[in-house]
Amino acid sequence: MHRFKVWAPNKNRVDLMSDERQTPMARLERGWWEASDAAAGPGTRYGFSIEGAQTRPDPRSASQPDGVLGLSQVVDHDLHPWTDSGWRGLSLPGLVLYELHVGTFSPEGTFDGVINRLPHLGELGIDALELMPVAEFSGNRGWGYDGADFFAPHHAYGGPAGLKRLIEACHAAGLGVILDVVYNHAGPVGNFLGEFGPYFTGRYRTTWGATFNFDGAGSDEVRRFVVDNALMWIRDYHIDGLRLDAVHAIVDQSPLHILEQLAAEVDALSAALHRSVLLIAETDANDPRLVRNRDAGGYGLDAAWADDWHHALHVALTGERTGYYEDFGAPELLGKALRQAWVYDGVWSPHRQKTRGRNPIGVPPERFVVAAQNHDQVGNRAAGERLAAMVDEGRLKAAAALLLTTPFTPLLFQGEEWAASTPFQYFTDHADPGLGKAVAEGRRREFAAFGWNPAQVPDPQDPGTFERSRLDWDEVNEPYHRGMLKWYRDLIALRRRLPAVAQGVWVQVEGDRIAFERESAGVRVNLGPPGRTVVEIVERA
Amino acid sequence: MHRFKVWAPNKNRVDLMSDERQTPMARLERGWWEASDAAAGPGTRYGFSIEGAQTRPDPRSASQPDGVLGLSQVVDHDLHPWTDSGWRGLSLPGLVLYELHVGTFSPEGTFDGVINRLPHLGELGIDALELMPVAEFSGNRGWGYDGADFFAPHHAYGGPAGLKRLIEACHAAGLGVILDVVYNHAGPVGNFLGEFGPYFTGRYRTTWGATFNFDGAGSDEVRRFVVDNALMWIRDYHIDGLRLDAVHAIVDQSPLHILEQLAAEVDALSAALHRSVLLIAETDANDPRLVRNRDAGGYGLDAAWADDWHHALHVALTGERTGYYEDFGAPELLGKALRQAWVYDGVWSPHRQKTRGRNPIGVPPERFVVAAQNHDQVGNRAAGERLAAMVDEGRLKAAAALLLTTPFTPLLFQGEEWAASTPFQYFTDHADPGLGKAVAEGRRREFAAFGWNPAQVPDPQDPGTFERSRLDWDEVNEPYHRGMLKWYRDLIALRRRLPAVAQGVWVQVEGDRIAFERESAGVRVNLGPPGRTVVEIVERA
Repeated sequence: MHRFKVWAPNKNRVDLMSDERQTPMARLERGWWEASDAAAGPGTRYGFSIEGAQTRPDPRSASQPDGVLGLSQVVDHDLHPWTDSGWRGLSLPGLVLYELHVGTFSPEGTFDGVINRLPHLGELGIDALELMPVAEFSGNRGWGYDGADFFAPHHAYGGPAGLKRLIEACHAAGLGVILDVVYNHAGPVGNFLGEFGPYFTGRYRTTWGATFNFDGAGSDEVRRFVVDNALMWIRDYHIDGLRLDAVHAIVDQSPLHILEQLAAEVDALSAALHRSVLLIAETDANDPRLVRNRDAGGYGLDAAWADDWHHALHVALTGERTGYYEDFGAPELLGKALRQAWVYDGVWSPHRQKTRGRNPIGVPPERFVVAAQNHDQVGNRAAGERLAAMVDEGRLKAAAALLLTTPFTPLLFQGEEWAASTPFQYFTDHADPGLGKAVAEGRRREFAAFGWNPAQVPDPQDPGTFERSRLDWDEVNEPYHRGMLKWYRDLIALRRRLPAVAQGVWVQVEGDRIAFERESAGVRVNLGPPGRTVVEIVERA
Repeated sequence: MHRFKVWAPNKNRVDLMSDERQTPMARLERGWWEASDAAAGPGTRYGFSIEGAQTRPDPRSASQPDGVLGLSQVVDHDLHPWTDSGWRGLSLPGLVLYELHVGTFSPEGTFDGVINRLPHLGELGIDALELMPVAEFSGNRGWGYDGADFFAPHHAYGGPAGLKRLIEACHAAGLGVILDVVYNHAGPVGNFLGEFGPYFTGRYRTTWGATFNFDGAGSDEVRRFVVDNALMWIRDYHIDGLRLDAVHAIVDQSPLHILEQLAAEVDALSAALHRSVLLIAETDANDPRLVRNRDAGGYGLDAAWADDWHHALHVALTGERTGYYEDFGAPELLGKALRQAWVYDGVWSPHRQKTRGRNPIGVPPERFVVAAQNHDQVGNRAAGERLAAMVDEGRLKAAAALLLTTPFTPLLFQGEEWAASTPFQYFTDHADPGLGKAVAEGRRREFAAFGWNPAQVPDPQDPGTFERSRLDWDEVNEPYHRGMLKWYRDLIALRRRLPAVAQGVWVQVEGDRIAFERESAGVRVNLGPPGRTVVEIVERA
């Protein structure tokens, strides 16, 4: 016996379609419907038909074995015999994050494939994996930011059971798992939410299409959808934290912002579970309200991204000044990034043609997540080339040294630790040939505007684009890559010897020379011309 | 000699057109242009031509003698010989506000007409006038919420000099002046701002059309436009406060919300002027962030409207339950309104189909502005009928008693104090016949949806609609109206004997009976059937 529930307000009839059976659902309060099916249980395939229309997957489907267009499958999370009862979660100070994409991290491209590589991560010394989105998205290959079934781990990665195995294996290995979740929009394919209820609004427009209705009529249940999704990952998958994608694209005019509600409910669950859970916002707004405490009028998230740190460093290393890099380049801006993470803290941005950000005074340094590379900064380049394809060994080592001694929370991107030669390109697998073509052409057009030859922009739909982006683990044994890996391991080991909460830093940037000092360690860099970079790491007893 | 400046970014040429002269303007930093005209001075008519296009009024025009489509006129505010140097502004606790519409308040329909009636207001005992918007709007008649020239007092009211005379007369009479300003949109007629720069955005949609670009490219100057407007009323007109229209319709995703910036800059000017200035938000969001202090993450406005107080009382008095009144009616909701002002403080609203508001715990009572009648609640009825046209004398007296003993800040609407028989209808004067017709038809359609006979909905464009809405001062001498006026005067006098900051109230509502107690006074009401209302006011020594 299984009880099915679905929210579909203002509808006259909803039917449960399970296996060959059609069961009319009973109307509950505030737009909810319910039905029981004596023959259903874990593994049962089902969907819902609204007023006789085509059967659709459950908006809260826990599993989509056949993808976003297939039926949902019943999962009983309570049946999983967890083995990590001693695990208490992650603590922010001192944390080193490692971002990975399940599909390209391992040869297998699955959650189990990640498990096979945990020894490498353990030896590297990182504290937590940060998985790019795993919620069911269109097709078998994709970055994951166009999710359609928010509650279902992707079938091609191994589904619910696979994700649970990965998290147990991580916890057994002393590693936490942070999951990237996308609450600023839903993907274009397989997204039937709008057929069920007022999940989306046309009042606010964003870059990526359908934005959630967090503050209009019916928004209570839309908010619950998102908050319950977060709570599910934590409760049913033992996830240690969530990386909230692009929160600057979430518009909510309610007195209780959805992010504040989310943080308050996650904190309450975390307390009930006696397990620490981190909420990390990706933002380009540089808004300290995100990470301020709720009793100071903040939302109470644990940390926020600081892309400015990346941009200031990237420009110093590469000399690139196109696009948003035009806002960086002056040595004093790199100094400010190394000191404060957010360079744009209420100052004029030429690229955005407005004053950007706000001063985060009083926010502890570990609340900023910084990276020298991440999936966006690599993958959003036309050919998805890593920093290692652009600069020499010395500059890569300089970047690593500054990243891993920072008082902020550093994030590595899969393969960065050995200067992987594989790119990370933009790939999709939309079954709809029209959409697939549109995505490919859109991307070519976008980069053509920046002077790229369209033929050099990989086709996202081409399986080869995905394959090229897979890590080549064989190269780790080559001397150059082995040397780089040692550099990263040694730096993480050095970081372990530093205080978890930094007491302050001293930074000086003069032309090509960067000097960075904190408690018992210092980094001195002379970038010099290509091939002549000098990096010196000083550790005091 | 006069120096002209205008913001027109990304234009190739801007010309100053003054009298018969055309002067090319010089490009300054960040989109500003400048020109001097030796022959110009106070009184000079001028406009700007962008890249040779038709001459438009100055976006910051101080005076539009010929209306929104005419030329601007130079005004030198510094030449005005102010006579109110001893005036120190208003203090919120104990304040009684009086909302008036300049065009219909007096037979003259001007600022000077208001001056003639100040003795009446002085005897009534109110503390401050709250002027409905005076910024230049289309035509000669209008409520003012569709303003086009934000810096220019309406020519039909008496322009800049007239407004200054009124404010000086008020200050001399010990009365403050609060001005209603509209920063959530600009009117449809005479609004040429978009031709000058990116004043508006299409990213957010509101009910009233063009919304300001407070957070996109170019938004710094748009924010300055609004903030400078507020500062101008305070500095150049000695305004004592601003009533910010419908702030829930302002969308700003910046880390520094435009309302917080506004409040901080107004507070700084207020301190520099040694004169108190109040900022009062009209809002239906019931968001305590508006009035919380900035060091607690609030915006630091002084007060916010509480329409819930009106609605709960109105439903009790009239039994109406249509439209948004469906959310009121239960006696406990009236009790909650009398105790807390905001009934919807984070609870489910059937009318809005969402949870509305947030608990304002800790916000002092004087920070809520409440009314038994105001221009919206009267004027947005199809026929603009006042409460006095709907209920009997006893109920009117009950409303007044509850309003004027409240710990919140009460607001009266012009004529309420004598139960004026004149309606306050919706009137416009759009020169464009197409727009005028569209407004009239739109209004008829809107009310037809509520079951009104379209023929009974007054035509906003008809001058008779405006004339009908003018107060009839002759009726004040009739016994019924004289008696009501005495009731209001006596209640305001009683209010003066109560502590300015209430120490708490005791409220009981049971069916038709309302008991309200505070420090040394109490109000007991038994509404009973029409004509049988009993109101008792108790004052203890």
